[in-house]
Amino acid sequence: MAKPLISVDLSRPAHEQDGLHNRWHPEIPPAATVRPGDIFRLEMKDWTDGQIGDNDSADDVRDVDLSVVHILTGPVHVDGAEPGDLLVVDLLDLGPLDRDAWGFTGIFARENGGGFLTDVFPEARKACWDFEGIFARSRHLPGVRFPGIVHPGLIGTAPSAELLATWNRREAALVATDPDRVPTLANLPTATNATLGALRGAQFDRVAAEGARTVPPREHGGNCDIKNLSRGSRIFFPVYVDGARLSMGDMHFSQGDGEITFCGAIEMSGFADLHVDLIKGGMAKYGLTSPLFKPGPVEPRFENYLVFEGISVDERTGEQRFVDATLAYRRACLAAIDYLANFGYSREQALLILGTAPIEGRISGIVDVPNACCTLYLPTSIFDGDIVPSSGPIPTIGGGSAALPSS
Amino acid sequence: MAKPLISVDLSRPAHEQDGLHNRWHPEIPPAATVRPGDIFRLEMKDWTDGQIGDNDSADDVRDVDLSVVHILTGPVHVDGAEPGDLLVVDLLDLGPLDRDAWGFTGIFARENGGGFLTDVFPEARKACWDFEGIFARSRHLPGVRFPGIVHPGLIGTAPSAELLATWNRREAALVATDPDRVPTLANLPTATNATLGALRGAQFDRVAAEGARTVPPREHGGNCDIKNLSRGSRIFFPVYVDGARLSMGDMHFSQGDGEITFCGAIEMSGFADLHVDLIKGGMAKYGLTSPLFKPGPVEPRFENYLVFEGISVDERTGEQRFVDATLAYRRACLAAIDYLANFGYSREQALLILGTAPIEGRISGIVDVPNACCTLYLPTSIFDGDIVPSSGPIPTIGGGSAALPSS
Amino acid sequence: MAKPLISVDLSRPAHEQDGLHNRWHPEIPPAATVRPGDIFRLEMKDWTDGQIGDNDSADDVRDVDLSVVHILTGPVHVDGAEPGDLLVVDLLDLGPLDRDAWGFTGIFARENGGGFLTDVFPEARKACWDFEGIFARSRHLPGVRFPGIVHPGLIGTAPSAELLATWNRREAALVATDPDRVPTLANLPTATNATLGALRGAQFDRVAAEGARTVPPREHGGNCDIKNLSRGSRIFFPVYVDGARLSMGDMHFSQGDGEITFCGAIEMSGFADLHVDLIKGGMAKYGLTSPLFKPGPVEPRFENYLVFEGISVDERTGEQRFVDATLAYRRACLAAIDYLANFGYSREQALLILGTAPIEGRISGIVDVPNACCTLYLPTSIFDGDIVPSSGPIPTIGGGSAALPSS
Amino acid sequence: MAKPLISVDLSRPAHEQDGLHNRWHPEIPPAATVRPGDIFRLEMKDWTDGQIGDNDSADDVRDVDLSVVHILTGPVHVDGAEPGDLLVVDLLDLGPLDRDAWGFTGIFARENGGGFLTDVFPEARKACWDFEGIFARSRHLPGVRFPGIVHPGLIGTAPSAELLATWNRREAALVATDPDRVPTLANLPTATNATLGALRGAQFDRVAAEGARTVPPREHGGNCDIKNLSRGSRIFFPVYVDGARLSMGDMHFSQGDGEITFCGAIEMSGFADLHVDLIKGGMAKYGLTSPLFKPGPVEPRFENYLVFEGISVDERTGEQRFVDATLAYRRACLAAIDYLANFGYSREQALLILGTAPIEGRISGIVDVPNACCTLYLPTSIFDGDIVPSSGPIPTIGGGSAALPSS
Repeated sequence: MAKPLISVDLSRPAHEQDGLHNRWHPEIPPAATVRPGDIFRLEMKDWTDGQIGDNDSADDVRDVDLSVVHILTGPVHVDGAEPGDLLVVDLLDLGPLDRDAWGFTGIFARENGGGFLTDVFPEARKACWDFEGIFARSRHLPGVRFPGIVHPGLIGTAPSAELLATWNRREAALVATDPDRVPTLANLPTATNATLGALRGAQFDRVAAEGARTVPPREHGGNCDIKNLSRGSRIFFPVYVDGARLSMGDMHFSQGDGEITFCGAIEMSGFADLHVDLIKGGMAKYGLTSPLFKPGPVEPRFENYLVFEGISVDERTGEQRFVDATLAYRRACLAAIDYLANFGYSREQALLILGTAPIEGRISGIVDVPNACCTLYLPTSIFDGDIVPSSGPIPTIGGGSAALPSS
Repeated sequence: MAKPLISVDLSRPAHEQDGLHNRWHPEIPPAATVRPGDIFRLEMKDWTDGQIGDNDSADDVRDVDLSVVHILTGPVHVDGAEPGDLLVVDLLDLGPLDRDAWGFTGIFARENGGGFLTDVFPEARKACWDFEGIFARSRHLPGVRFPGIVHPGLIGTAPSAELLATWNRREAALVATDPDRVPTLANLPTATNATLGALRGAQFDRVAAEGARTVPPREHGGNCDIKNLSRGSRIFFPVYVDGARLSMGDMHFSQGDGEITFCGAIEMSGFADLHVDLIKGGMAKYGLTSPLFKPGPVEPRFENYLVFEGISVDERTGEQRFVDATLAYRRACLAAIDYLANFGYSREQALLILGTAPIEGRISGIVDVPNACCTLYLPTSIFDGDIVPSSGPIPTIGGGSAALPSS
Repeated sequence: MAKPLISVDLSRPAHEQDGLHNRWHPEIPPAATVRPGDIFRLEMKDWTDGQIGDNDSADDVRDVDLSVVHILTGPVHVDGAEPGDLLVVDLLDLGPLDRDAWGFTGIFARENGGGFLTDVFPEARKACWDFEGIFARSRHLPGVRFPGIVHPGLIGTAPSAELLATWNRREAALVATDPDRVPTLANLPTATNATLGALRGAQFDRVAAEGARTVPPREHGGNCDIKNLSRGSRIFFPVYVDGARLSMGDMHFSQGDGEITFCGAIEMSGFADLHVDLIKGGMAKYGLTSPLFKPGPVEPRFENYLVFEGISVDERTGEQRFVDATLAYRRACLAAIDYLANFGYSREQALLILGTAPIEGRISGIVDVPNACCTLYLPTSIFDGDIVPSSGPIPTIGGGSAALPSS
Repeated sequence: MAKPLISVDLSRPAHEQDGLHNRWHPEIPPAATVRPGDIFRLEMKDWTDGQIGDNDSADDVRDVDLSVVHILTGPVHVDGAEPGDLLVVDLLDLGPLDRDAWGFTGIFARENGGGFLTDVFPEARKACWDFEGIFARSRHLPGVRFPGIVHPGLIGTAPSAELLATWNRREAALVATDPDRVPTLANLPTATNATLGALRGAQFDRVAAEGARTVPPREHGGNCDIKNLSRGSRIFFPVYVDGARLSMGDMHFSQGDGEITFCGAIEMSGFADLHVDLIKGGMAKYGLTSPLFKPGPVEPRFENYLVFEGISVDERTGEQRFVDATLAYRRACLAAIDYLANFGYSREQALLILGTAPIEGRISGIVDVPNACCTLYLPTSIFDGDIVPSSGPIPTIGGGSAALPSS
């Protein structure tokens, strides 16, 4: 692979580098141009722009400045792409940067980010990961080692002005229902710490004020956090603007379905080798208004899983909810956390494992009123000992401690 | 395999057979007794007790009497099982009955059952399936053929009186929030068409009035509709009453994750070869209050999937919802239905395919506020032609029609 | 599945049943007729015609009459099949007969059958197997349990008179090089115990004298013993005679690659549900003179293997042979047998395990003169304990004894 | 990953670099030292020391100097390793060198190297490969693209003086049976072009004269060409000398089982990230005299194969051979080559595909005298079109030409 189309400088902040941005807007200028059929490499900074360190304190996670996220590489302009086309993107290869080969996982504090189970786990925690070839291992999570499914947490095309306006309108309406909620219901545009590639001046100010935050997935892809967008995948993206303007970032060495700790994958900087092509008029031909993809051929292969079930009954109140898959998955996650606590892990460590290991989260039943049934598939061979029920748990597989914040 | 421990007579209704029941209650008398270590066969009627026919009219689906469901075989008393134990159940083999080898799938009418997408698909439809060894094929869904993942939609232990009371209380509270809703929010106990094995007399009347309906999954297992509880799986069930009292039914030749048509699997009668064992005191040892399982080793192996994404924005109103996985999966399902309509299928046929084929429904991202991201994995080799995006869809893979109700 | 097209009576010998035969010859009369597109069931006796019993003595294996083998069901005439066509056979389902659900594995005595390692294992041994749904377990091989890959050891079309003459000529020429060898180099035609379906009289005598033995695989398929011809496979057979005349038998519940004990699979009676079709003129269109197949989708899935290597150096003499894959696989098998002996198994038991469990035998390197490198993949999860090298072997996984002959 | 423990200079020949060698001998001095538990990177030159170019002429393959091969990196001394131990080597990651990311495959000329099918394919041919992330594609083999299973063709520990003497003695005895054969029966020691790391002087001359050639696999591992020794594999090597002295090379981006073109893999330079450990006294504890390994978790996953069968009848003479797996695999390979010729490939191109694509070669039956049955599994999704038999082959999937020698 030749010189990257866009490189990153890990020693300088993103806003000093023209190939990076952290908002979605059609006017962010392309950082590079390619043609259909091209193969090229992009480099990405980690999503926090280097705010988190490889150390044993969770202070950086607790105090992270989330107005900075996510640092994306791009946009890449694809010659000939027009609104209504499908942009075909092959993820030919993905991996960490040789010069920065480590990762981190955080539980965000309730007051600064939160996460799926923030009411149960309100305090910041961190685990740092060593990469041993295709495997990851953390000194903060002993007894666990697994092969990664490297993927970009975030990849998408630029929205049109109209689509952007729709996003901003509907998310503002949601926030308006409970504007003081902590954590917030949605992250609305903010100029603070906006990075917009080479854009400068008055246009910068306008775009920073309008640009959508990168937190959620939307109709263009975005922060889907789909762990199976890994090596060899082919994605079909709707094209909303001339040139498609593809951006990506938030590289994950591994992640469990749901990314339930929020900063939940093994976060890292990284590279991607891409191939792009076009299906002219593809959105209409196939009636597509959201991305579609084909997974790649080399995901890790597991034989043995332990599967936890969850239903939509709130464990805090005993209240029955109506076919609520979010709650059902919460219950499956909590069941798995409680279970792992039998084997020597703290519940925070168990959460960090489920956020990062290649677990599968399934919507198994969603019609059996009033309960949804969600299931969590935990591959058992990631542990150094046997966790399947037998005569009683072995309490010494885990141990140690996640990184804590200073008190 | 020797004579079944419990056989069914397909020519007679369930209430005339002592080994069957259709409510959950600790006082339903055991239909048979086994010991830990035993291997035995159970036979099951289809969940509707034979109300649906192998024909080209959906009248039977439209008019089905849902007070009859689900017809379960059991309870089986396991010697030595006591509350607090884990009952270990191996599904050694599963399959259709040689004497009744066909299946059906229905879309329930909005006024009689409904389903996950009942607002979009309010009318009854049906597809009938021929089993060709391990494969299923339907004259109502041409161009589709796939290997089944046979499983019991419903399997569980009996609740204790206390647990039953909890269920009835919490579900009644939910119904009370909108008692006239169609479809109903939950199915509360009803004596109508209650079948309770050999129970008779005043105790029958009391149990029929108290017995929980079998529709939802709960803390004992029940109607989980987990397609991966297939051949070779091992399940660990909490034991709530002496003898554990295991029951099962609702056999599926195949089902997609979610069972999104409600009567959405390929429904059939069938058999199961079981092995049972006990982990004494296992609930406390492992801190379990819901079932846990290990999938079996012979699920079909697919190389190629097409994956559809959904986010929690309501497609009817454009409204942004907060991390709603149920809605996100709805969007993924609708995207897949729209997509399949490019290939010659009606949208009802597409729904029937997604309810029955071995699709996977995943909770991919559930922390990226305000959107959940759910994904639907459709194995592409189940179709007779290529459905991956290329220069344009081949509109002739499908064709024909689902079975309609008479007008 | 309706009534079998051809049934077997397990209580009577094959020669009393018109649908069975044990030689290959174009003049064996069809036992049934089907049309392209038909789906039908065949039943098969075990390959020895019931000579082996479910007991703890290997006398029956030691004394087996091999002139009786293999008992095949058929031939089935396919309407419209002509020489030069390809017969497409789908193995829709396969399994044991409910009324005879057990299996056996034998090590043949050197003087009566022999086998791949007969110089090392010259005495008869036997293991009997219980089927527990999809799993097999033997009281003679404790500590082992695995899912079967059910397949017909033997399936093929009838040879033309010319092809039959070629077989007999070339095999006689081989035997002539060492006519007194024990075991024999090849089994030449013999009228003793010939079973030829409904054939009688002078034609019987001629066909019995000419008919090829069923022992080896040949250009029509035959005794390929390919373990992956399992559920859902599609086979393309050359057609050499009008009607194709398909026969099959030698049902195996499971077998390791190589079937290294000769009577090495888990042998049983069984059934097969078949679908047949034709590609007219397919042999010329595709240039085929031997069968081709597509494996099915539901073979067991293993994550962990232990792999043994063998090279073509004779372990008895230290002699270097030239790229001899047969010898290299012998060395890999012996390495695995020696290894398993560390865990409490006798070497005869280890051989019985490798003959029956779903091991894979690979030709890894075949150009690196003078050594071939063959590898044996042993799935480790079939054992009740861990057999991967660590600080030292656990000598108590196995135990017990294979069935011995009376002395 | 930090600086490699041993780097290679691609611009200089191996004999000018102290970390490389091309013979096996216990006295080749260690190029580096590690301790049990260490993780480190090695770099490897391609096996020919750069003799083959990325161009459209096969002259370099035809004229290759084979006294130079194989260029190995090492030996690496492992502190504490003693004869009788097992050296545990984890292949944590493997890949091409970023600065040399391409590959080649050759058919060697009969007079200079030959190969498995050299009597059928006596002339030199070449294909050059582009790496597109995890995929490989060759301009000389259009219509084919597949994910690689990167592995070292060659990895092993140093032999003891005694073991080396055994090798030289037994291989000389084989050559003596036909000393003038072309190609040779075995490659005996030769000082010509011997490269021995830092060794110099009289010791160099003696070791060069005694050192075993690296062509075959032997009791220490060596040139096993096992394609499944890929990412994440763990190998247990016998230790024959103090320090174990591990060497490796002959990196393959991909290879089919058998490596049937001899220079048959996709040959390249590359890197390996290794972890080493020791099992003290492991050879005796486990009775091991050859390597053992566990495959890794990320091999490509295929759903569809087309399987070709071969038996041990010589296609040139019609002669029946006795259970000859080498011949049976030859027949399976030739059947596959003939078959691919229906789709627009020359037979040389078909051979190049089978040597490089992730085909599996299986010993299916090896007891059915007089035939062995070997099978070749060809994954069908590596082709741009459908190669499964239907109404007739599509002759336009392939095309173009392998690189030819100048005439």
